[in-house]
Amino acid sequence: MSRIVMKFGGTSVADLDRIRNVAARVKREVDAGHQVAVVVSAMSGATNQLVKWCQDLSPLHDAREYDTVVATGEQVTIGLTAIALQAIGVEARSWQGWQVPIITDNAHGKARVDRIEGDELIRRMEQGQVPVVAGFQGLEPTRNRVTTLGRGGSDLSAVALAAALKADRCDIYTDVDGIYTTDPRIVPRAKKLERISYEEMLELASVGAKVLQTRSVELAMKARVRVQVLSSFEDKPGSLVVDEDEIMEKPIVSGIAYSRDEAKVTLRRVPDRPGVAARVFGPLSAANVNVDMIVQNIGADGGTDMTFTVGRSDLPRCTDILEKAKAELGFEALIADPDVAKISVVGIGMRTHAGVASTMFKTLADKGINIQVISTSEIKVSVLVAADYTELAVRALHTAYGLDAA
Amino acid sequence: MSRIVMKFGGTSVADLDRIRNVAARVKREVDAGHQVAVVVSAMSGATNQLVKWCQDLSPLHDAREYDTVVATGEQVTIGLTAIALQAIGVEARSWQGWQVPIITDNAHGKARVDRIEGDELIRRMEQGQVPVVAGFQGLEPTRNRVTTLGRGGSDLSAVALAAALKADRCDIYTDVDGIYTTDPRIVPRAKKLERISYEEMLELASVGAKVLQTRSVELAMKARVRVQVLSSFEDKPGSLVVDEDEIMEKPIVSGIAYSRDEAKVTLRRVPDRPGVAARVFGPLSAANVNVDMIVQNIGADGGTDMTFTVGRSDLPRCTDILEKAKAELGFEALIADPDVAKISVVGIGMRTHAGVASTMFKTLADKGINIQVISTSEIKVSVLVAADYTELAVRALHTAYGLDAA
Repeated sequence: MSRIVMKFGGTSVADLDRIRNVAARVKREVDAGHQVAVVVSAMSGATNQLVKWCQDLSPLHDAREYDTVVATGEQVTIGLTAIALQAIGVEARSWQGWQVPIITDNAHGKARVDRIEGDELIRRMEQGQVPVVAGFQGLEPTRNRVTTLGRGGSDLSAVALAAALKADRCDIYTDVDGIYTTDPRIVPRAKKLERISYEEMLELASVGAKVLQTRSVELAMKARVRVQVLSSFEDKPGSLVVDEDEIMEKPIVSGIAYSRDEAKVTLRRVPDRPGVAARVFGPLSAANVNVDMIVQNIGADGGTDMTFTVGRSDLPRCTDILEKAKAELGFEALIADPDVAKISVVGIGMRTHAGVASTMFKTLADKGINIQVISTSEIKVSVLVAADYTELAVRALHTAYGLDAA
Repeated sequence: MSRIVMKFGGTSVADLDRIRNVAARVKREVDAGHQVAVVVSAMSGATNQLVKWCQDLSPLHDAREYDTVVATGEQVTIGLTAIALQAIGVEARSWQGWQVPIITDNAHGKARVDRIEGDELIRRMEQGQVPVVAGFQGLEPTRNRVTTLGRGGSDLSAVALAAALKADRCDIYTDVDGIYTTDPRIVPRAKKLERISYEEMLELASVGAKVLQTRSVELAMKARVRVQVLSSFEDKPGSLVVDEDEIMEKPIVSGIAYSRDEAKVTLRRVPDRPGVAARVFGPLSAANVNVDMIVQNIGADGGTDMTFTVGRSDLPRCTDILEKAKAELGFEALIADPDVAKISVVGIGMRTHAGVASTMFKTLADKGINIQVISTSEIKVSVLVAADYTELAVRALHTAYGLDAA
């Protein structure tokens, strides 16, 4: 007997037939004697529609109201999934974030889970009931307003729930059957990875390999939750996200990732004074705008150009904050470019091998792709390029690092 | 300075432009110095889709899960309406039923409001904030699960909120511009009523004149809430629902109503024993199935045919309960007919005038319409006919009682 959290993404609950399929899969685990908790996302497309409505009404909308609106997607699917489970004889009950409760901070739209009060769920699981928990949702500390965890937050909900319920495994059912060396829609010869380390997965997720959401991998690594990624449509083994120690042969490059959810911001001729970076990035951080890659070119005349990237959805808020502070910061102009993509090569073997970055730069140069920004970490090299070159860059790098399937 | 509750139905919030229009109307009242609370329904069509999903998954679904699913419709519109209000400079905040809270009983799917804890809302209204409250929603007594008030429950929410907030008026904005002598889609020469008594409105609402939901009129009568029905698309006076004393000339017949949401159930050859009616209707009542018209024909041989009507959506549950009790009740067969309509003539003047019923029967007979069941009250005569005859019957009666506009 194991305790399992089963998480189903938007495409797995996209219509009633798929929800019935989810119920059948859950029943199989229940019939095998396991204690099961289910986490579901919104029907695919539903959240996009809700987000669009909020943005169309007001680009700078109140994030608390945004959360009220978008949280409904998961509320629909938990109810429907509970009904589908009951219809095939599985005792089930839906739980919204505020009902569990899943307590978060009050960073609406991208809240962090503080803790999950899971005792009642454990009690019911031990009595044979299947809790169907809304992914993505939380409750802020005053316990009156709904929060959401940001896009892809249902993975985080599932991993956090697995940790809180002391589950033996967290199975993430999705529309792909595992984690690949890159996006198979771009490179048909991409290979499925049997195992991948938390750290590699983290780098891949953070640069847009959207199989698992970044923070869910961070949390899995911290709470040592064993995560399995597998298809909700086929019966075949998925990919395991495990500790690095469990991986025998460490490839230099495990995968190529890309992200089109980036936007580039350049501040022209910022006065080159101590503390100017803090004055630029302080207010952005206070407004929960995450800044990623940063480069600064010091000019000859004491002015400097500062370039950085933010999440594309944060761009209006970011430019609004900086334009308001233009006089104080003293820059000459703000140039925003949403048409960029971040391409990354990732591998734990990189730590002990040189030459990975130069191979990347040479490969891109050979294809005539201009590199706008570079950033590196221990196990990753990322570059920012014009969005139009995304597929070309990914394909060239996949081949250059010998990742193409035979 | 007045305190006003403004309620907007599904067609008034059907898309973003209409939500902006709602916000503009609310702003006008706020700018005039009034304290305003807003109640909104789900976007038109949204609730139907949600209900259909529940029914398609399981006709006998768990009403608690149904409530979880269908409550999302209003949750979407409160968030969007709050955003639209903020976008034009009106301070606003959305409130779900559980957040206010609006405490109901635990009759999921058709809960009754027990009380509204409105102190926080009053405090905020006095500070100039507009609460945007989800119609239709409540919270059952354990305060963990969402309830809904049944179809059309947003009117009830608005009237209950008006009572709890001690509002001077409850304005119900809808897609019609008032209350008519009958449905103008069926009779183009129907006339708008300037005033109508609570009791007449109650009879009209309960037989399907869907301008106001039955229980909302009952509550308005009990709490003496002045209700105005008006169009959210045009600027013209609506109809006032007031105390009978405020109506000078009392017409014999004020209106003709119809309802197609009925289903007829006949139990053939029920043993004619004392207590059999209690044994039939007890379990239906326990399951929250409302029984309306009842007739019983005593046969010569000790058996009896019992016919009654229930809401059409309750029909599967009703037949399920009775078929299971068939042996105990001893009837020979259950015949269900969903293709019926209830036609009613209503008027407070009926109390002091005879001949209303015979005019009705003669008019229908002249058109060849067979009457299946008859029921009467002090100010109403209702008949059940085959659904196909609905329009014909309504038109003939509207003319017969002299209600056609000149």
